[in-house]
Amino acid sequence: MSEEKEFVVTPWEVRGEIDYERLIRDFGTTKVDSELLERIKKDAGELHLFLKRGLFFSHRDMNWILDRYEAGEKFFLYTGRGPSGHTHLGHLVPWIFTKWLQDRFGAELYFQMTDDEKFLFNQELSLKTTMSFTYENALDVIALGFDPKKTFIFSNVEYVKTLYKIALEIAKHVNFSTVKAVFGFQNTTNIGMIFFPALQAAPCFLPSVLEGKNIPCLIPASIDQDPYWRGIAREVAPKLGYYKPAQIHNKLVPGLGKGGKMSASEPETAIFTTDDPDVAVKKIMSSYTGGRDTAEEQRRLGGRADICPVYHNYEFLFVPDDKELKKLYDDCKTGKMLCGECKMIFASKLKPFLKEHQKKREKAKGMLDKFMVKD
Amino acid sequence: MSEEKEFVVTPWEVRGEIDYERLIRDFGTTKVDSELLERIKKDAGELHLFLKRGLFFSHRDMNWILDRYEAGEKFFLYTGRGPSGHTHLGHLVPWIFTKWLQDRFGAELYFQMTDDEKFLFNQELSLKTTMSFTYENALDVIALGFDPKKTFIFSNVEYVKTLYKIALEIAKHVNFSTVKAVFGFQNTTNIGMIFFPALQAAPCFLPSVLEGKNIPCLIPASIDQDPYWRGIAREVAPKLGYYKPAQIHNKLVPGLGKGGKMSASEPETAIFTTDDPDVAVKKIMSSYTGGRDTAEEQRRLGGRADICPVYHNYEFLFVPDDKELKKLYDDCKTGKMLCGECKMIFASKLKPFLKEHQKKREKAKGMLDKFMVKD
Repeated sequence: MSEEKEFVVTPWEVRGEIDYERLIRDFGTTKVDSELLERIKKDAGELHLFLKRGLFFSHRDMNWILDRYEAGEKFFLYTGRGPSGHTHLGHLVPWIFTKWLQDRFGAELYFQMTDDEKFLFNQELSLKTTMSFTYENALDVIALGFDPKKTFIFSNVEYVKTLYKIALEIAKHVNFSTVKAVFGFQNTTNIGMIFFPALQAAPCFLPSVLEGKNIPCLIPASIDQDPYWRGIAREVAPKLGYYKPAQIHNKLVPGLGKGGKMSASEPETAIFTTDDPDVAVKKIMSSYTGGRDTAEEQRRLGGRADICPVYHNYEFLFVPDDKELKKLYDDCKTGKMLCGECKMIFASKLKPFLKEHQKKREKAKGMLDKFMVKD
Repeated sequence: MSEEKEFVVTPWEVRGEIDYERLIRDFGTTKVDSELLERIKKDAGELHLFLKRGLFFSHRDMNWILDRYEAGEKFFLYTGRGPSGHTHLGHLVPWIFTKWLQDRFGAELYFQMTDDEKFLFNQELSLKTTMSFTYENALDVIALGFDPKKTFIFSNVEYVKTLYKIALEIAKHVNFSTVKAVFGFQNTTNIGMIFFPALQAAPCFLPSVLEGKNIPCLIPASIDQDPYWRGIAREVAPKLGYYKPAQIHNKLVPGLGKGGKMSASEPETAIFTTDDPDVAVKKIMSSYTGGRDTAEEQRRLGGRADICPVYHNYEFLFVPDDKELKKLYDDCKTGKMLCGECKMIFASKLKPFLKEHQKKREKAKGMLDKFMVKD
């Protein structure tokens, strides 16, 4: 048995170098294989870059949901965001993919802002703050071009009257032992956090409740959120007579530091959609890379693109062209291109991206009413 | 040290013969003494029968709240009901007293229906059922003559949007160890129940939140609800910058069986406000009493009024005249009156009481909108 790397992936903490193959085993999910890719391509009419590149790498029940779809039964999408701060590039990955799913499958989207969770979890954050980030983050969602007729964004706090009834039905089937095992909750965990998994699971069944018939649910989200679906939603679904939600999981976008995902709690290693482009470029310039100690050494040995957050940012978001990506990879690995030059390339791609996104984000301010649902 | 009787008093279970003096010690409350009674009499202009008879026997911070009142600061009242079934006579006691407090002190009343709790706690009850009992029970509250301009009755499920924000602030300061110690929650307790104490505590601070300034709160309620105030609301209040809620506690109305409080879960020993008067009389006729095994023995030894639920029902609700009550007591204790005769007296008082209440309850159906508040 090979030596296993130390890493942690939970909804609240991601640490170390993640072994995604091992996560598939540990979480009991299924690898997105070439057969599934073929099927998605057939049903969607194309294959999204994130699928081609293996960034959405793991799933549960994708074949089941495509069975339903091919039989004429529409599914809905459910994803969300914990509004603890501004949106960063890492958040955009599942959202961009969700938008593609909406377009390709004509699916409605329920988008949950867990302002309650972020308040409960973080001693420093007031409820007023997390609720205001709900709206800030919603601007980024809207800026990606979701269909206002098919997209329902809600703050948990402002939509709780609708959610609470479903959460109660879920909560009656989940005890402390379960959340202790699934999330590692302790006796010191506050009672709001203990209840919260019921609220995060509730939207899985919301359209079924609203329409009075079972509607399949597909959750595109980062793999770190898996415990909510594995341990709560999918366990309780059959007890309440609902379908188990299907899932497709993406890898985590690395931060600009050494190891770990891009995280709002480490602002110097995260590029926020609201960052002034010049500030963002400075963050790139300070980024950790896969570079060597000296230029000489790097010319000789080559860079390590595979562990470089700059390269992974290309892969996720900034270099859709496979040939261009391969050239960047090869130029790094052969030592032809040094990190300084590569960072300049990243900067030249990031600046227009941010400017364009910020323009759309500004425009989104007039569209909040079309997207936000409240009680 | 005298031998202590076995009894249990929790929000969900009341068992055995209750030693109220010991509850005062165990719960750390203060006895309602003659000095406090004098003060209430002065401020209220009269003394309610329940105070004269020692049925409201225990309190916390009553002198503090009267200090505030005498200094010109209004307090509000908060009490409630767990709508697991129809209202019985035992429920009416704190409500009648609450009505008197409202009249005498010009106080607003927030009345919580914990339809969420009763659903979570009872495997047999659906949310639909507990929510429908919210409205059934509200009719009984309204029938007692509360001021519609000053009375706000709410279902937790239907008012949760308002309550949830406050509950979150509370929940952030309460962990599993605390609810384990205060309520005896276990690892098998469901996560809805674990969170619920935050929702029951929330109305203590609701008017303060709504009006943007601290408003004193007085909770008239049965002593079995004390853990919510002692262990949660009063602990968290100073951390959130609110006043600790004051309380005044009543003794529990005994059921018609041997020991324990009147309980909706034992319908044969509880008289419901919705009972057909003839059915109620049958329950009286089957009631446990303080009688002896034979008529001869009872004539010789006398009855035991002190342990008799029929006598206690006189004391609480049906014989406001002290002289009449004393005569009933003496006639029992001396063996002059046997239980059959006494039950006939009870029946003769209960029937018109129920008929009158049911008439008012019917009229209340047209007044629900004036009393119920929703999000």
